[in-house]
Amino acid sequence: MVLYNVRASHLNETFAALADPTRRAILARLASGEAGVMQLAKPFDMSQPAISKHLKVLERAGLIVRGRKAQSRPCRLRAGPLKEVAEWAERYRRYWEQSFERLDAYLGKLQRLEKGHGRKSTK
Amino acid sequence: MVLYNVRASHLNETFAALADPTRRAILARLASGEAGVMQLAKPFDMSQPAISKHLKVLERAGLIVRGRKAQSRPCRLRAGPLKEVAEWAERYRRYWEQSFERLDAYLGKLQRLEKGHGRKSTK
Repeated sequence: MVLYNVRASHLNETFAALADPTRRAILARLASGEAGVMQLAKPFDMSQPAISKHLKVLERAGLIVRGRKAQSRPCRLRAGPLKEVAEWAERYRRYWEQSFERLDAYLGKLQRLEKGHGRKSTK
Repeated sequence: MVLYNVRASHLNETFAALADPTRRAILARLASGEAGVMQLAKPFDMSQPAISKHLKVLERAGLIVRGRKAQSRPCRLRAGPLKEVAEWAERYRRYWEQSFERLDAYLGKLQRLEKGHGRKSTK
């Protein structure tokens, strides 16, 4: 049996929240400072309710926190879950490095073959 | 307007594929070598069709490739999209480091306060 640890469910919510380009863009915007719904809605050409929906997903995933001020409820980035994402992906580093090495070797081989052909055609 | 680059759509599919614990566990299994559907279904206590569904999602996201052998179609990990995930998350490193520094400072302050109280109570 495969064991799921407690953190697994965090990753589920984090990855699901990050699967949307608007939500990733909201995080990128909040990286430059906190903002209210109105400010966030503007560059996206989206209605406030649509943005609010995205904010709820981000808040549930712990990727943002919202202030208590009833009207604006400014949003702030919480990067902790992104650290988990980075750590999770890093476990596979040697696999992507291996595949780039293989690709490199393959391209090197192609170049050598091409040079070989080039030499032949100039003879 | 927010600009979405070509890679954005890749990340959508990658994050969506990673939002499921079974799919992440399949990737972890494939990190130790290629495997067929039967081998993959076993530790998960899942039906082959259920696993096949997950494999389709992983394949569409470019996280695995499948062999051509009609019967077993062995699956192999493709870590390229995970590199993109790691790079995307890394952009937020300074934010999670900042928040850990703040937490550290806060805990330090609490400890100093506790020591202060300790000294008073022993007087």
